[in-house]
Amino acid sequence: MNKYICEFIGTFALVFFGCATVLFMRQEVGLVGVAFAFGLSVVAMAYAVGPVSGAHLNPAVSLGFLVSGRLGSGDFVGYVIAQCAGAIVSAGVLYLIAAGKAGGYDVAASGFAQNGWSTYSATSAFVFELVATFLFVTVILNSTAPGGAGALAGLAIGLTLVAIHLAGIAVSGSSVNPARALGPALFAGSAALSQLWLYILAPCLGAAAAGLLQRNRAIGLEGAAQPA
Amino acid sequence: MNKYICEFIGTFALVFFGCATVLFMRQEVGLVGVAFAFGLSVVAMAYAVGPVSGAHLNPAVSLGFLVSGRLGSGDFVGYVIAQCAGAIVSAGVLYLIAAGKAGGYDVAASGFAQNGWSTYSATSAFVFELVATFLFVTVILNSTAPGGAGALAGLAIGLTLVAIHLAGIAVSGSSVNPARALGPALFAGSAALSQLWLYILAPCLGAAAAGLLQRNRAIGLEGAAQPA
Amino acid sequence: MNKYICEFIGTFALVFFGCATVLFMRQEVGLVGVAFAFGLSVVAMAYAVGPVSGAHLNPAVSLGFLVSGRLGSGDFVGYVIAQCAGAIVSAGVLYLIAAGKAGGYDVAASGFAQNGWSTYSATSAFVFELVATFLFVTVILNSTAPGGAGALAGLAIGLTLVAIHLAGIAVSGSSVNPARALGPALFAGSAALSQLWLYILAPCLGAAAAGLLQRNRAIGLEGAAQPA
Amino acid sequence: MNKYICEFIGTFALVFFGCATVLFMRQEVGLVGVAFAFGLSVVAMAYAVGPVSGAHLNPAVSLGFLVSGRLGSGDFVGYVIAQCAGAIVSAGVLYLIAAGKAGGYDVAASGFAQNGWSTYSATSAFVFELVATFLFVTVILNSTAPGGAGALAGLAIGLTLVAIHLAGIAVSGSSVNPARALGPALFAGSAALSQLWLYILAPCLGAAAAGLLQRNRAIGLEGAAQPA
Repeated sequence: MNKYICEFIGTFALVFFGCATVLFMRQEVGLVGVAFAFGLSVVAMAYAVGPVSGAHLNPAVSLGFLVSGRLGSGDFVGYVIAQCAGAIVSAGVLYLIAAGKAGGYDVAASGFAQNGWSTYSATSAFVFELVATFLFVTVILNSTAPGGAGALAGLAIGLTLVAIHLAGIAVSGSSVNPARALGPALFAGSAALSQLWLYILAPCLGAAAAGLLQRNRAIGLEGAAQPA
Repeated sequence: MNKYICEFIGTFALVFFGCATVLFMRQEVGLVGVAFAFGLSVVAMAYAVGPVSGAHLNPAVSLGFLVSGRLGSGDFVGYVIAQCAGAIVSAGVLYLIAAGKAGGYDVAASGFAQNGWSTYSATSAFVFELVATFLFVTVILNSTAPGGAGALAGLAIGLTLVAIHLAGIAVSGSSVNPARALGPALFAGSAALSQLWLYILAPCLGAAAAGLLQRNRAIGLEGAAQPA
Repeated sequence: MNKYICEFIGTFALVFFGCATVLFMRQEVGLVGVAFAFGLSVVAMAYAVGPVSGAHLNPAVSLGFLVSGRLGSGDFVGYVIAQCAGAIVSAGVLYLIAAGKAGGYDVAASGFAQNGWSTYSATSAFVFELVATFLFVTVILNSTAPGGAGALAGLAIGLTLVAIHLAGIAVSGSSVNPARALGPALFAGSAALSQLWLYILAPCLGAAAAGLLQRNRAIGLEGAAQPA
Repeated sequence: MNKYICEFIGTFALVFFGCATVLFMRQEVGLVGVAFAFGLSVVAMAYAVGPVSGAHLNPAVSLGFLVSGRLGSGDFVGYVIAQCAGAIVSAGVLYLIAAGKAGGYDVAASGFAQNGWSTYSATSAFVFELVATFLFVTVILNSTAPGGAGALAGLAIGLTLVAIHLAGIAVSGSSVNPARALGPALFAGSAALSQLWLYILAPCLGAAAAGLLQRNRAIGLEGAAQPA
């Protein structure tokens, strides 16, 4: 049970700090601030709950572990449920805070920190989510493998998420995480929900590819030549 | 005695660098700069005084340690006194520096880096402080526990504080720390002092909840399943 | 074969996140965002592929290793081919994403994240690239040497690249990497290609100097006096 | 000889990246960028030359080590000479790069990244430099002591310098380093040179106080109570 609570709290925290920055602080800190808020939340949770659950905080990441053979299918289901629940509850708490804004918070006008595309096409958003999640999960699987980054993995993974957000918020919102996409979309309304499929499909395909690559040790650590 | 001096110096430094950024550099570095100034001050002090006192720098954090059973009640009182003294003296030194501004520094017009809420309701500020402190103290208690983050804990904790500031300065000022709220409020005047209760109550409730959770090992590290 | 795939993926990721930030997010995150995107991509890849290939991600870095005697000439050729291929393919994927922009993406008007100089002279750009690459490769060679930074090397190297970008984008684009210069230049057109020589020559000279210095142990770690 | 070359190169790099950001990129990256450029240069050099010389890069830091009894007086003199030489040569290379600016670089109008005070009084600048250097050198002496931060010290120290710059550039330029103040001042002209005394005196007083405190183990690590 313990590890599911950890995934719940961890995903709650990721959505809480990341989406709060979008909702309450975007004008003040810009997208640099948003990028660091998401990435540093992962750093926080990697060291808070990582030793118990691995701090996946993301169904696509758990899928990568499943495909690579490092997570059982029962745990996979439990992790995904806990992550989605954490993201939804977190979005609910943010909705409560937003409601206290002087003059009210207008979801229709301002959105609710949902992922989405508009300036770039669905194809562009799909390619970005696919490639970024592939690279993200490659970092995660390799850095947490034996002979990987050891205790530094959580830091490296969180800083990778900073880079992903700096690179692609304008294209796709830089989700790379179906749970993070789901929670706010439930509060943002039908337009966000109608785009949700992309934030489930593209990250899962990218993560599965990363998992397969590691399973086949194409870029895995075992048996690799030593660096010169 | 040593460890109380450490908490004094550590909290002094947190308020000095964080609030100086608000007072002297806010126009130049924005709230991204403020967020990093507070968080990186914690990194600095975690590695400067952490090995002696644990670098709590925050009465709510010490309360979390007390509730979780990792700090004695005598030390708790000493820590809180040292932290509050450090924050007050630090605000005093900042007042001295501010007084040297050409044309004078107008506290009434510009404030004095105090925490406070105005755009969002007291309820919103309370919820943010409560939730953020709960997550912050969870990071601290777990990352510093045996089997936690080891030497990286200080970095993870400071970067968590960056995320907290990025997320909520507009809502509550992102205090999560009664001592940091107290010091500047004494110089900012009656409006700040009238809001001080929230910055004592909400962080302490959040921290106590985190401490209780760890005491009962709901998300503690001991006896936890190994990550897959 | 494994390590060449790693260099391909690593350089792909560096160009993907760094140049995507320039292409899609420059207005939103400014050059602070661009600097962190490039640097944190190196952190990501250092911990993802570093244990296999060393994560050079840069022909100039591989040249530094070659000159210092820590990389064979056969591997050097393989590394450079893999790095250039990764950069070119990455620029191609970015071109695909950019093409999905509403109204189209105008390479002639907006460039394609290529390196180049205009406000400062070619001499200024040359000096900056030479000096910055010398310092960059010195950090890399020393921090990855026995007795160096150990597991922290990847973090130190990536953060060095952040500083390099903060310092010199206005002067030369802060390339310090012939592969990163090559990929986008192929899509940006003839003006970028005509400046490419500088981004091959200056970084390679700087890197070779750093490699020579370490080979001769002028600032190498072996046999050095212990710090006081 | 080796360690003096390291201090030369390290201080060269600190001034090169930090002051280049002020000179060439200030409009683009703001003072957040400047703060990170200075701090991350220290991270870079801590892991590049730290294992040989300790990477003081700063006469005030070397004074702190001297006073605390961890550096001999002969080495102190050699370190200070190497640091000042590195800073001056670095400022000279930056002058060369600046000279290549289209239309020329106007030192009289734009300054040359020198430290100085104007909006705040000399007293304010003095207090800030004194207090900030005291805290900075306390971080350095404690984190590099046995039982301190170990391999993480360089990161903690560099991030402390980021916080110092975020806090006080508007007050004093956030020097905390006589060598960094000296190099650019020689190129900036008489006004900068007339303020140089403060950037020697205040940091040295702060550093000496930190050194004394550690010598007397008031906040030193040895014999300290264990954290609860």
